[in-house]
Amino acid sequence: MWTVSAKETSFSHRVAHATITCACPDGTPLRDQAVAVEQVSHDFLFGNIGFGFIDHATGADTSEETARLVEDYLDLFNATTLPFYLGRFEAVRGRPDTKRLMAAARFFQERGQVVKGHPLVWHTVTPGWLNELPLAEVEEVLRQRIRREVAGFAGVIDLWDAINEVVIMPVFTAEENAVTRLAYRKGRLGMVRLAVEEARAVNPRARLLINDFDLSEAYECLIEGVLEAGIPIDAIGLQTHMHQGYRGEDHLLAKVERFARYGLPVHLTETSLVSGELMPEQIVDLNDFQVDQWPSTPAGEDRQADEIVRHYRSMVSHPAVKALVYWGITDRGAWLKAPVGLIRADGSRKPAYDALHGLIKGDWWVHPSEGRTDAEGCFALTGWLGTYDVTVAGRTRRIHLDRPGELAVEVER
Amino acid sequence: MWTVSAKETSFSHRVAHATITCACPDGTPLRDQAVAVEQVSHDFLFGNIGFGFIDHATGADTSEETARLVEDYLDLFNATTLPFYLGRFEAVRGRPDTKRLMAAARFFQERGQVVKGHPLVWHTVTPGWLNELPLAEVEEVLRQRIRREVAGFAGVIDLWDAINEVVIMPVFTAEENAVTRLAYRKGRLGMVRLAVEEARAVNPRARLLINDFDLSEAYECLIEGVLEAGIPIDAIGLQTHMHQGYRGEDHLLAKVERFARYGLPVHLTETSLVSGELMPEQIVDLNDFQVDQWPSTPAGEDRQADEIVRHYRSMVSHPAVKALVYWGITDRGAWLKAPVGLIRADGSRKPAYDALHGLIKGDWWVHPSEGRTDAEGCFALTGWLGTYDVTVAGRTRRIHLDRPGELAVEVER
Repeated sequence: MWTVSAKETSFSHRVAHATITCACPDGTPLRDQAVAVEQVSHDFLFGNIGFGFIDHATGADTSEETARLVEDYLDLFNATTLPFYLGRFEAVRGRPDTKRLMAAARFFQERGQVVKGHPLVWHTVTPGWLNELPLAEVEEVLRQRIRREVAGFAGVIDLWDAINEVVIMPVFTAEENAVTRLAYRKGRLGMVRLAVEEARAVNPRARLLINDFDLSEAYECLIEGVLEAGIPIDAIGLQTHMHQGYRGEDHLLAKVERFARYGLPVHLTETSLVSGELMPEQIVDLNDFQVDQWPSTPAGEDRQADEIVRHYRSMVSHPAVKALVYWGITDRGAWLKAPVGLIRADGSRKPAYDALHGLIKGDWWVHPSEGRTDAEGCFALTGWLGTYDVTVAGRTRRIHLDRPGELAVEVER
Repeated sequence: MWTVSAKETSFSHRVAHATITCACPDGTPLRDQAVAVEQVSHDFLFGNIGFGFIDHATGADTSEETARLVEDYLDLFNATTLPFYLGRFEAVRGRPDTKRLMAAARFFQERGQVVKGHPLVWHTVTPGWLNELPLAEVEEVLRQRIRREVAGFAGVIDLWDAINEVVIMPVFTAEENAVTRLAYRKGRLGMVRLAVEEARAVNPRARLLINDFDLSEAYECLIEGVLEAGIPIDAIGLQTHMHQGYRGEDHLLAKVERFARYGLPVHLTETSLVSGELMPEQIVDLNDFQVDQWPSTPAGEDRQADEIVRHYRSMVSHPAVKALVYWGITDRGAWLKAPVGLIRADGSRKPAYDALHGLIKGDWWVHPSEGRTDAEGCFALTGWLGTYDVTVAGRTRRIHLDRPGELAVEVER
C-alpha cells in the first residue's frame, strides 16, 4: 500500500495513522488510481500576533515591506491574536475601533487563520475616561464592551482571552486604574465570572480563556477557585515572555503539567525569545526595562533558533497543549524594542524563522505527494492532526484527521 | 467622678470607655463607696506555644526551671497553641497521644488560657504509616483524626488551625508524603473543605482557621476560592516567622490589610523575631538553614526588644487582628536553634520579655486601683476590651468590656 507520512511522527497524541479508502458514490473502490495528498492545516494552533498588519488588512498600509512580512507570516502561522485593549480600542468613549478590527479579523479568517481577541478585561491599557467613572459604571462599561465585542465579532472571532492577569489585577500598583479598583471590590472570581458569563451569554460557541503571566501557585489557586465556582472557562492561558532567557524544557513542561491537571486545554498564549542580549534577571516587571536600542546579534539569533526548536518540540510533546502563540513576527515596533521577532527589522528572516518553518511546515507537515491506491482503493497517510486535500480520479476532497491513533477515512469521488 | 484608665488608650477599636454604675439589688446606688477595680484578661489573644510545657502539665517534668518558665509564660500570655502534628500525636497508628495533650490543654485552660490546637491537616510531620496507605484510606484517616481530636477536646480546645499551608500543600516537594498526594488529587479547596467540614460537624462552636506562611497573591486567591465555595472558615491565619529580619510596620500592615478585606478576623499565628544574627535572606525554606549553634547576642536582644514593641503596637493597631501568637518562650529547644525566645536558655529574661510585658500587662493594662463611687454610685473605667473585677461594698463582680467606645455597665452588689 502506498504510504505517505510526515517526517516526524513521534508525538503519538498529535499524529493519526489513517487508512484512506477511495471509492465511488456507489461504494466501488477506486482501485489502482493516481492519488495526490497535501496537508492544508494543523489542528494545533501555531499562532502569532497580527497587531502590525491591521493597516495592511484595511488597505491603509500598502507598503511592499508589510506585504512581504504578511506573506512570511501566513506561511508559518495558522492562528492570529488581534488587540482589543480597551484603552486603544475605545480611546474615546463611544467610538470603538470595530470597523478596523473587523477588517483585520476577516482578513485573517479568509486566509485560514483562527482569530483570537485579546483581551476583553485587563487592568492595563485602560482608557482615561474609564478611570474617572464610579465603580458601578465601570462594571457596566466592562459588561457592555464584552457583549459588544463578543457578539459583534461572533463567527469571525470565536476565541477570546476573556480576562488577563487576574492574579495581580486587584493589587496591581504600577498604574492607578478602575479595573484594579473594581477587582479589589468584587474579588478575582467575581471578575472572572463577569468576563466569562457576559461573553458566553452572547456567543455560546466562543472558547474563553483565562490568561496570566503568573505561573506560580497563585494561578493554580485562582483556577481552582474558578473551577469550584463553576465558571465555564475553556482553556488555561500561560504567558511565557522569555526576555530574561529561555526557561528550559524541564521547567516549562513542569509548569504545563501543573496546569494540565485541571483537565482543560493549555494554551501558551504569549511566547517570546530574544535574539540579542538578555534582560537582566533582577527586573521583575518587564516594562521596567526601557532601552534606546536592543539589537539582534548573530550569536543571539543562533541561540534563538536553537531555543525556538527546543521550545516548540517540548510544548507540542505535552498532550494538554493545544496552542502556542508567539508574540511578534518582526523586530520592527516590538514590545520593549526587544529583538523577539523571527524577521529582522530590515525584513530578512532570522534563523529562528527558518528553524520554526522547518518544524511546522517541514518535519511536522505532509508535503504534496502523489501515489496510487491499492487493489482495495486504499492508501495510508500518517500525519499530524489537521486537514488534508486528497485528489483522486480528478476530484479533490478535504479530509480531517481529527484524533490521534489508527483512523479509517472514506473519500468518495 | 473617679476615673481609672489604662495608660495607652489610643487604639480606639481596642478600648472601651465605660461608666460603671454600682447599685444594690433594689437599684439604690452605692453612693460614695470604696471601690476597687482590677483587670483580669485581655480579649485580644496574646498567644504563644505551650509545646515545652506538656510534661510539666502532666507532672512528668518537675524541674524548677520549667516551673519558673511557666510562671513567666502565664504572666504574659493568655492563649496557648498546643501541637497536634499527626506524625508525633499518632506516631504509632492507633495510639494517639490524647491523654497527654488533654492534660496539657486542661492545665492551660484552668489557668485562664484560650487553648488552640495546631494543626489538624498538614503535609509536614506526617507519620510513616500514613504515607504507605492508598489515597482513599489516607483521606479516611484524616477525616477520622479530625473528628476524633475536635470532638474529644471540645470545650477544652475550641480553636483549631484546621489546615496548614494549603498553598504549597499539593506541590510540596521537600518531603514525599501522602497529604501532598491527596491534595494534588483533591485540589486545595477539597482539602480545606474536608478539614473544616469534619471539624465543624463534631464541634459547631469550634473556631476554625486556615493558616499559611505564604502571604502572597496565592493565599488571597486560595481564600477567595474558599469563600466562593462557602467553606465556613472563621479566621485567616498569617504566619510571620521573621528569622531573616523584622519586615517592618508598613509591610506587615499592608499584608494584614490585604487579608482583612475578606471581612474575617486575622490571626497572626506564628510570630518570631530573633535576638541574634539574622538568617541569610537567600534561604527560601527556613528549614534549609541548619546550624550547630545560633547564639543570642546583646545587640540582637536590644533589636528584638525594639522590634517586638513595634510589631505588637502595629498589629494591634489594625482592627481586623484578633490574635498575635508568638512562637516560643525560651531559646531552649527552639525551632532551628534560633534565638527567638523571650527568655534565654539559662532562664533569664531577655529585654524583649520585659518590653512586651510593658505593653500587655503595662501600658495596655488596668492595674489594681482603688477609689470611690460618686453621688450616683458611678465611676469611669477606660480599658482595653477584656474582663475586669470590680469590688464594691465587700463583693467582687466580674464585668466584661466587650465592645469599643462608650459603654454603660451595671454592677450589682
